[in-house]
Amino acid sequence: MKALTYHGPGRRTWGEVPDPVVRDPEDAIVRVDAVTICGTDLHILGGDVPEVTDGRILGHEAVGTVVTVGSAVHSFAPGDRVLVSCISACGRCPYCRQGAYGQCRGGGGWILGHLVDGTQAEYVRTPFADNSLHRLPEGVTDETALLLADILPTAFEVGVRNARVGPGDTVVIVGAGPIGLAAVTTARLYSPGRIVAVDLARSRLDAAARAGADDVLMAADDVDAAIRALSPDGLGADVAIEAVGVPETFELCTRVVRPGGRVANVGVHGRPATLHLEELWIRNVTITTGLVDTGTTPLLLDMLAAGRLDVSGLVTHRFGLDEMQDAYDVFADPGTTGALKVALFRT
Amino acid sequence: MKALTYHGPGRRTWGEVPDPVVRDPEDAIVRVDAVTICGTDLHILGGDVPEVTDGRILGHEAVGTVVTVGSAVHSFAPGDRVLVSCISACGRCPYCRQGAYGQCRGGGGWILGHLVDGTQAEYVRTPFADNSLHRLPEGVTDETALLLADILPTAFEVGVRNARVGPGDTVVIVGAGPIGLAAVTTARLYSPGRIVAVDLARSRLDAAARAGADDVLMAADDVDAAIRALSPDGLGADVAIEAVGVPETFELCTRVVRPGGRVANVGVHGRPATLHLEELWIRNVTITTGLVDTGTTPLLLDMLAAGRLDVSGLVTHRFGLDEMQDAYDVFADPGTTGALKVALFRT
Amino acid sequence: MKALTYHGPGRRTWGEVPDPVVRDPEDAIVRVDAVTICGTDLHILGGDVPEVTDGRILGHEAVGTVVTVGSAVHSFAPGDRVLVSCISACGRCPYCRQGAYGQCRGGGGWILGHLVDGTQAEYVRTPFADNSLHRLPEGVTDETALLLADILPTAFEVGVRNARVGPGDTVVIVGAGPIGLAAVTTARLYSPGRIVAVDLARSRLDAAARAGADDVLMAADDVDAAIRALSPDGLGADVAIEAVGVPETFELCTRVVRPGGRVANVGVHGRPATLHLEELWIRNVTITTGLVDTGTTPLLLDMLAAGRLDVSGLVTHRFGLDEMQDAYDVFADPGTTGALKVALFRT
Amino acid sequence: MKALTYHGPGRRTWGEVPDPVVRDPEDAIVRVDAVTICGTDLHILGGDVPEVTDGRILGHEAVGTVVTVGSAVHSFAPGDRVLVSCISACGRCPYCRQGAYGQCRGGGGWILGHLVDGTQAEYVRTPFADNSLHRLPEGVTDETALLLADILPTAFEVGVRNARVGPGDTVVIVGAGPIGLAAVTTARLYSPGRIVAVDLARSRLDAAARAGADDVLMAADDVDAAIRALSPDGLGADVAIEAVGVPETFELCTRVVRPGGRVANVGVHGRPATLHLEELWIRNVTITTGLVDTGTTPLLLDMLAAGRLDVSGLVTHRFGLDEMQDAYDVFADPGTTGALKVALFRT
Repeated sequence: MKALTYHGPGRRTWGEVPDPVVRDPEDAIVRVDAVTICGTDLHILGGDVPEVTDGRILGHEAVGTVVTVGSAVHSFAPGDRVLVSCISACGRCPYCRQGAYGQCRGGGGWILGHLVDGTQAEYVRTPFADNSLHRLPEGVTDETALLLADILPTAFEVGVRNARVGPGDTVVIVGAGPIGLAAVTTARLYSPGRIVAVDLARSRLDAAARAGADDVLMAADDVDAAIRALSPDGLGADVAIEAVGVPETFELCTRVVRPGGRVANVGVHGRPATLHLEELWIRNVTITTGLVDTGTTPLLLDMLAAGRLDVSGLVTHRFGLDEMQDAYDVFADPGTTGALKVALFRT
Repeated sequence: MKALTYHGPGRRTWGEVPDPVVRDPEDAIVRVDAVTICGTDLHILGGDVPEVTDGRILGHEAVGTVVTVGSAVHSFAPGDRVLVSCISACGRCPYCRQGAYGQCRGGGGWILGHLVDGTQAEYVRTPFADNSLHRLPEGVTDETALLLADILPTAFEVGVRNARVGPGDTVVIVGAGPIGLAAVTTARLYSPGRIVAVDLARSRLDAAARAGADDVLMAADDVDAAIRALSPDGLGADVAIEAVGVPETFELCTRVVRPGGRVANVGVHGRPATLHLEELWIRNVTITTGLVDTGTTPLLLDMLAAGRLDVSGLVTHRFGLDEMQDAYDVFADPGTTGALKVALFRT
Repeated sequence: MKALTYHGPGRRTWGEVPDPVVRDPEDAIVRVDAVTICGTDLHILGGDVPEVTDGRILGHEAVGTVVTVGSAVHSFAPGDRVLVSCISACGRCPYCRQGAYGQCRGGGGWILGHLVDGTQAEYVRTPFADNSLHRLPEGVTDETALLLADILPTAFEVGVRNARVGPGDTVVIVGAGPIGLAAVTTARLYSPGRIVAVDLARSRLDAAARAGADDVLMAADDVDAAIRALSPDGLGADVAIEAVGVPETFELCTRVVRPGGRVANVGVHGRPATLHLEELWIRNVTITTGLVDTGTTPLLLDMLAAGRLDVSGLVTHRFGLDEMQDAYDVFADPGTTGALKVALFRT
Repeated sequence: MKALTYHGPGRRTWGEVPDPVVRDPEDAIVRVDAVTICGTDLHILGGDVPEVTDGRILGHEAVGTVVTVGSAVHSFAPGDRVLVSCISACGRCPYCRQGAYGQCRGGGGWILGHLVDGTQAEYVRTPFADNSLHRLPEGVTDETALLLADILPTAFEVGVRNARVGPGDTVVIVGAGPIGLAAVTTARLYSPGRIVAVDLARSRLDAAARAGADDVLMAADDVDAAIRALSPDGLGADVAIEAVGVPETFELCTRVVRPGGRVANVGVHGRPATLHLEELWIRNVTITTGLVDTGTTPLLLDMLAAGRLDVSGLVTHRFGLDEMQDAYDVFADPGTTGALKVALFRT
């Protein structure tokens, strides 16, 4: 089959590789019908994720059709249309028992396109299939479902729910890329009073406004003051969600929350940030970090099927699977292309 | 009356000042029967708290007897034996309505010995008396009650409860001074599996062991490994409570919690810390900061009265009120004196 | 002034009574600009609330203008436009400290039109004014604000929040009178998957559909099966909110929730219900009861001012204050008049 | 092998039956080293559980040694010493994903000795072995571990945790049989202010006092008043735990909790109770029911191994496995024998 493989920093190949086979009774083989590229894939290609070894097929998000299942797979059969989640779960370890699938100690967690071959291919082997695939409801398209493989549950769980967004809250979302926009969309499920999106790119702020942000702010010297001016009594936001992954944006979040506020970090960071405890120690602030667990994926799928979750506008570019290299080029240069999520479809 | 007043960095005086009087109908005047000194008082004397102005009477912890009440005080009358809490609460602002008295926007919060004259005196004016004093139950001594003016509720609320200590948890408490020891005592209310105290001073670790720490560790290069070795599966602690207030101890806390763990900062910090988001972003860690609200003070008083809260060992030195300067000298030099809390009594 | 007074079961008078005066420094006198009638007032007139004594002015919901304040009132001044809440709060007792104002032990709770004279009058004395009045934001009309004096916070706190309504939930609301409709409106703040309203009156079900119910069901023999058919996997609802106050509707709620579901009772009951523990003991069901605390009233007022809370359709009939007796007649006969809430305005 | 089988109401046999065999790849066969009898077994023999069919081996609590495992069992191997839990969990259904194993829709839940053959035998087949067995820590005896097969997690989860017992709470536990005593033991993990045990039998109240109850009350006409007298301000208990299973005891619980209190039902009920909503509707009461999920079993095992959970006194009678019929006779007549839990051991 064809697949996108990694060969050291900066080097990726789209070419022929062996078809995957069932190795463990809990495996399933899934034909990839739609797949996307994540910012994390660019990090890998940048050499930032040393666990990824030469020849690894990348990708951890897909929608597909089950082709083969191992003997211990109970919930899926060939022909089933499924979401391949970014998180695999052994289902047996203490973390999985708590629903913290992203922290699985039994061989799962984020493994696809990282520690085992991933989804940017014609077929993918999915370990722990019973706990890692999700049956697609009727009426959900491949393209919309694809957004639930990672970014929607990530924004919802790690951003919105960790930050305990509630009715009437002032919510600042820093970064209006795919994750930030998914945070806007899922924050709205709790009827906040005001969603303020912050970014450096006007096109992304426009997308945030379309997704439902009440206010959009260019990141600039006076963004702190602007946020304060938009918040009740000028005290600051109830919630700040970091969806970029650099120290500056995290530090912005810690500055603009009110006493008693919550900062939820969603961004993938490569460097430490400065935590101004000399100001924060007295302010009753809660800061959370986390990897998605995907425990809310069934809920989000149901809401998508019921027409209660609007993810339009997140996919900006569409390709055939064979155009994988072009898709990477478009996705890697959003300043020029305006790309948010790119979707590739089996042809 | 006599009082301890501040006169700029490094300068304190014990001498005659005017007696306090009721200025607002919600004030009470309390005769100080017992009083203590807090690490924060030393910070003030170090010049770190610029809001404190020349001539200010210091101190925010006391036990005393009500002498006079303003016309709008409902709950207290002259002769009542009361705890003077470190936090005053207007009771009307949005923060007070949420029980976040420490963040009061209506003129309360930490004001005694900070923005208004404090408790290190023969008498003290207590604003918002109805919401800021606590009637002492029968059978509670001045000395034990004194520990509930600040350190017990602080350790309990900002440390133990913010960190959600639960049965079976491995709890690391960094710093075994008065607050750290109070954290050991109050953490035990939730039956953790193991309490590990860390400090630089052997005498404080001995005190931690007496307070109920299961393990005590000298802060040293290998403390990370030692904590990991004591934790289930070597994953790290469920909870780390910072009770020192320097970047190194905070950073230690963030290193030694397991994925999914909680770090509760209690220490008063003067400098920023480094937050290693490049490691923490994926680890589902929750970090909290906060000033005590004293909402649990009535509960702690009841437990003290019922003999269910053992605070013995926290007061190491006792003085007459006139010996205020000596008490400061002893408290400011714990390495030599072994002081934890000092108590001064009306004579 | 003129007022509506109670004179034993079935006997009410609209006539001249003495003007109220400040009796306690925490009182305010409010001129009533708009007032409404509650189902509870009908219960009182039915003789079901024996604490209400002869001559009592009824009513616990109003919007008005402050005329006079006692010497200990800090937050309000003559001329302020305020919401008079159904709950008064001393602010000092242990229940008030927890935000459980409805359970106030210090002289507050539900007292207006019950233990002290109420709002169905030209003027009303409001005890504990600082904790019991709410300043009206700009742009909120008297008529919409009136709905926040009782029914909106009651439905939100005692129904929606006690039942922990969340995204995707199937929510059954039994009773589509004013409280049930307010439950539909406030449940939507949490993006449930489906709201099912049940009532005996077609006109009320129509109102429920307009308020946002996804499905409306006539109460009938097969309502259990119909609810089950609408719920995921046929297991039953996640949440059932009782908004009627008779045993049959409460028992319906306990039958139609799924294992793990929540039943929130909001209705005022006069008789016991049968709790089928022989079926429920094993089903992980949570049942809550409660009186409103009005802690969410400021939030709801802000959302109303921001245009984020649609309460249109709840007021069906409008009167001048002098038409109090007519308003009672219309409100007491909803089967004929179609009345939901009636509003009376100063003329 | 030998086993205790059910043959219709009142008829039980101890005799030879076929040895169990692996039927599903997720099964394990466990040799029973210790087993006990539950009150539920008596209910079955009373004919109250019609799903139990003729010939069924009873029992859902055991400690044993793994003999054989199916091909899909990952976590256990022959020779492992294990706790056989009363709850089996498929691990894949929506309820299991939430940790609500007791409500498993995938073939688990309470099945042993109910829908499939149970543990009162020389060997037992345990379905879903990975999710239903627990490895025994070093140093835990068979007899103490046996108490964690059902009664300790049931009392802890369904009683103590559902009722949110916290420091300082007044906790009433109605029924001082095995479950009630386990509730006393596990409630103490949260440092309540006072535990009050109520029962009809003096010997059980004595056992409750030994387990740590602060007060013991004979169930009698004046028990309501006695409880109120023991509670702060006479308002009633914070928590009432029902551990009997008859309407009278449940109704007692609903009467004696304070406004804002919690009632946790643990008892197995055969008849409905009367819920006095005419009194409760206004009192902010929370009532919970539930079947144990056993999610806390690993925690309780760890605490047992660490010597932090004292279960002494719960086993009153010990037998050889062959004495099964005698053990039933003793257990079924506690008024005469004083039996709490009986333990039977492989000989």
